[in-house]
Amino acid sequence: MGGEKTRIVILGGGFAGVYTAVHLEKLLRGAERDSVEITLVSKENYIVFQPLLPEVISGSVDMLHVISPIRRLAKRTKLYTREVEAIDLARKVVRLVPGHRPQPLDLGFDHLVLALGNRLDGSRIPGVPEHAIPFKYLGDALLLRNHVVHQLEEAEIERDPGLRRKLLTFVVAGGGFSGVECIAELQDFLRDAVDAYPGIDRKEIRHVLLQRGDRLLPEVTESLGRYAEKILRQRGVDVRLGAGLKSVSAGSVTIEDAKTKATATIAAATCVATIPAGPHPVLASLPITEEGRIPANEFLETSWPGVWALGDCATVKLADGTTSPPTAQHALRQARTCAANILAAVRNGPKAPFAFTGLGKMGSLGRRNAVVEIFGMRMKGLFAWLMWRSVYITKFPGLDRQVRLFFDWLLDAFLPRDITQLRVFRDEAIRRECFQPGETVFAGGDFGDKVYFVVEGEVAVLRDGKPIATLKKGDVVGEAALLSNAPRNATLRAETAVTVVSVSRKAFEEIIQHVPGVAPEMQRIMAGRRTAAPSR
Amino acid sequence: MGGEKTRIVILGGGFAGVYTAVHLEKLLRGAERDSVEITLVSKENYIVFQPLLPEVISGSVDMLHVISPIRRLAKRTKLYTREVEAIDLARKVVRLVPGHRPQPLDLGFDHLVLALGNRLDGSRIPGVPEHAIPFKYLGDALLLRNHVVHQLEEAEIERDPGLRRKLLTFVVAGGGFSGVECIAELQDFLRDAVDAYPGIDRKEIRHVLLQRGDRLLPEVTESLGRYAEKILRQRGVDVRLGAGLKSVSAGSVTIEDAKTKATATIAAATCVATIPAGPHPVLASLPITEEGRIPANEFLETSWPGVWALGDCATVKLADGTTSPPTAQHALRQARTCAANILAAVRNGPKAPFAFTGLGKMGSLGRRNAVVEIFGMRMKGLFAWLMWRSVYITKFPGLDRQVRLFFDWLLDAFLPRDITQLRVFRDEAIRRECFQPGETVFAGGDFGDKVYFVVEGEVAVLRDGKPIATLKKGDVVGEAALLSNAPRNATLRAETAVTVVSVSRKAFEEIIQHVPGVAPEMQRIMAGRRTAAPSR
Repeated sequence: MGGEKTRIVILGGGFAGVYTAVHLEKLLRGAERDSVEITLVSKENYIVFQPLLPEVISGSVDMLHVISPIRRLAKRTKLYTREVEAIDLARKVVRLVPGHRPQPLDLGFDHLVLALGNRLDGSRIPGVPEHAIPFKYLGDALLLRNHVVHQLEEAEIERDPGLRRKLLTFVVAGGGFSGVECIAELQDFLRDAVDAYPGIDRKEIRHVLLQRGDRLLPEVTESLGRYAEKILRQRGVDVRLGAGLKSVSAGSVTIEDAKTKATATIAAATCVATIPAGPHPVLASLPITEEGRIPANEFLETSWPGVWALGDCATVKLADGTTSPPTAQHALRQARTCAANILAAVRNGPKAPFAFTGLGKMGSLGRRNAVVEIFGMRMKGLFAWLMWRSVYITKFPGLDRQVRLFFDWLLDAFLPRDITQLRVFRDEAIRRECFQPGETVFAGGDFGDKVYFVVEGEVAVLRDGKPIATLKKGDVVGEAALLSNAPRNATLRAETAVTVVSVSRKAFEEIIQHVPGVAPEMQRIMAGRRTAAPSR
Repeated sequence: MGGEKTRIVILGGGFAGVYTAVHLEKLLRGAERDSVEITLVSKENYIVFQPLLPEVISGSVDMLHVISPIRRLAKRTKLYTREVEAIDLARKVVRLVPGHRPQPLDLGFDHLVLALGNRLDGSRIPGVPEHAIPFKYLGDALLLRNHVVHQLEEAEIERDPGLRRKLLTFVVAGGGFSGVECIAELQDFLRDAVDAYPGIDRKEIRHVLLQRGDRLLPEVTESLGRYAEKILRQRGVDVRLGAGLKSVSAGSVTIEDAKTKATATIAAATCVATIPAGPHPVLASLPITEEGRIPANEFLETSWPGVWALGDCATVKLADGTTSPPTAQHALRQARTCAANILAAVRNGPKAPFAFTGLGKMGSLGRRNAVVEIFGMRMKGLFAWLMWRSVYITKFPGLDRQVRLFFDWLLDAFLPRDITQLRVFRDEAIRRECFQPGETVFAGGDFGDKVYFVVEGEVAVLRDGKPIATLKKGDVVGEAALLSNAPRNATLRAETAVTVVSVSRKAFEEIIQHVPGVAPEMQRIMAGRRTAAPSR
């Protein structure tokens, strides 16, 4: 007492980070509770129970019930609901991004725990950042669910067969647990929901699962992977093995054969990307990072004194030379070891090594079916599914959530699926959009709802089917229909792979009125058009 | 059969519109089911049970359980989940706004039912469109809940007392059922939630309810209104009678004394507006509209043949000269009469007049308390609250929802309140913000996250507390900090009431790179600054 506090700062609000805080709280004794300060930095104020996230799509579990508030799990930990902007190991300071008040926040530390997990990193696949729906946070599952209902609402009143096909094709990329569970729940939901849409024939709905490897569920044995494949195919899912995600555009998904490198394009307005995973960007610049991850020894220590690493952002080498796999059950147990070893360091006591080889693996296939590998046994079907539910209900953080989950599953057994569409997501006013060669950016007769600025590639302006102009980087198109409130008088078609910045009507009106330089330049461009071939 | 179909188009997805469709479906006989086509246009694909919306804030009812999918209530009705853009009575055509495909959709009709309700119309109160949170749709309740949790998260780590006060003050405008229930549930939620935030003292949280009239709940008798006022005051709600909403800014709410017209400003980052109500904008241009509403007779007919009106968008004059009040129970019964009379017109049968004087009124005060006026009796307290719940659970559209509601209320009795923050709402990249005289737009040392374009008013640029420049309409400010990634080197303070267009960092980067004319103009402006007093 009276001296300086020992500051333990934990970065990351997943199982690894939150349970390090939980175990630290448990292990602190007497006066240590005053002399040791635990701080946790998490992007969200809740922990996501990833294995149940796919159930949010089908609505068999309520969306708020797959998450648990961190403040209630780690009550004596100071929580910062912020993203991490930078880590300075030498100065022992972590900088957080600004919140309500636009000022960065600096946290000093004596011990730093890196538990930042991994994230979807689609930056190297064209169109993924712009058009693919990630599947990691609760917001993603909610967005996906509403997006899917929106496709049904639109298809119900759309008569063009090509557009209907695009609206009713759902592609999921990634054949691991996350992707398989996602497509299983998606298919489950759509099968029920389509009954409420008399204008849609069940057979019109297509589900495609892309997997670059030659089998599903590389996490479990081959026979269980083949079983999952068989079940999904029986339900009508188009499982494509050896098919990598090559690119995504506003209306299509392009796949690449893993061996021949031949490409094929699927018309689809929905692409969920569960792959590829990449490291947290803030780790890239750390001197202790190797290939995006932080090496740690069996005590969860990194090569930098006072810095610890665990979970999916770490490569934890055990005493026997093996590496601890990136699963929730390992992260949970690493957290316990890490908390104990940090306190051992604080107390100058002996550290204990991490040694845990895993209990088993399981994944739901939806509709009362699952695959389970546990204690060396392999199971599938109804019994595996019951086991899957029982394990997850008892593992869920927080007793209140366990009760809520139980009632959700109880009601799901006899009540119909929810098909309400929560339209809380705004389209961004300014965003990038990608188009494949031959795809239509807008069509003659369309309502002029956006202005486009060409960033990359070539687009043809067509009138009566004939090209009258070609636009390139730096060109603007579509402003006339927007400013005159008239329908488009031409069609815009991508000739190459094209990227544009699109600006909504409302945003463009504010820009042209208030951003200096825009109005005269737009007048000049539009005057030039009047003498040449005009396109609005 | 064989002839043309009779097309009945209903506009509006509230109780009035949806139940007109439901009753039409019930009343159609035999061959009529083929010869009469019912179409409903609704902004959302669900009906909101308004009286339970406030419970979404506290989480005592799950958010999806206060809504019911329209497709399941009116199964043979064709639903268009769209907004109405225009109505052409003479040509008998309704135009809907574009959806997935940017083309407007025209619906022809033989009978048109106007049931568009009303909406929050804050356009005449400065700052309301920009900063007040409306409270009508489910998305609003969700946004409010997340906004409130966000204020707690920020206040927990904020040390500046002025900012803390702003973050922890919650203002609700409007003392009718909607406003009273909203503040009651908000207070209920915060009382529980604050326990999870050790850095916030319960006493720091302020609730203010604004009511222009001299009593709460004008819908019921004065004694029940006074009772509601007493209960809210006992719980610490600052009830301001005779206080109208004058304006809202980014960090304050200005109120006006209804008699003296004196104004006062409350520092608050949260303002919920349940008033004032205004008509649906599409009705304004109709020849049959009078003061924003559609007059209808006791048969729900308007002065235009084949056009019917009911619910909150109509003024329904009964045979005895009285007007049917705008409540859900009246709308429900008007829908039954309207459906019967439309079919009477189709069948050339006799029409029946609407005659219903209402059963009663009720409103929850939260925490097992309510006020009820029914069959001439007045009740309050626990018994009234039990009655309120029983009535609403049985009135809820859809049996599955009734079951879900029952379980929600059951679990709410013994499980803790949820404090997770679903951050699915993006700040708009380009938006308007308002500031009152003396308010800070940004402060020296802040992180430069936005560029501002002055639309109205005067802002002072201060360095070391001294004004070095004044900016007016057309001026741009804040670009330097953003482009150089350095902290603000000056403070910006509103001198008059100020409106700005703010553009986020990411959007501004796209604009300066891709919108023609911006880059050279910004360079010119910044070069001019270097010779004068620079402000970033």
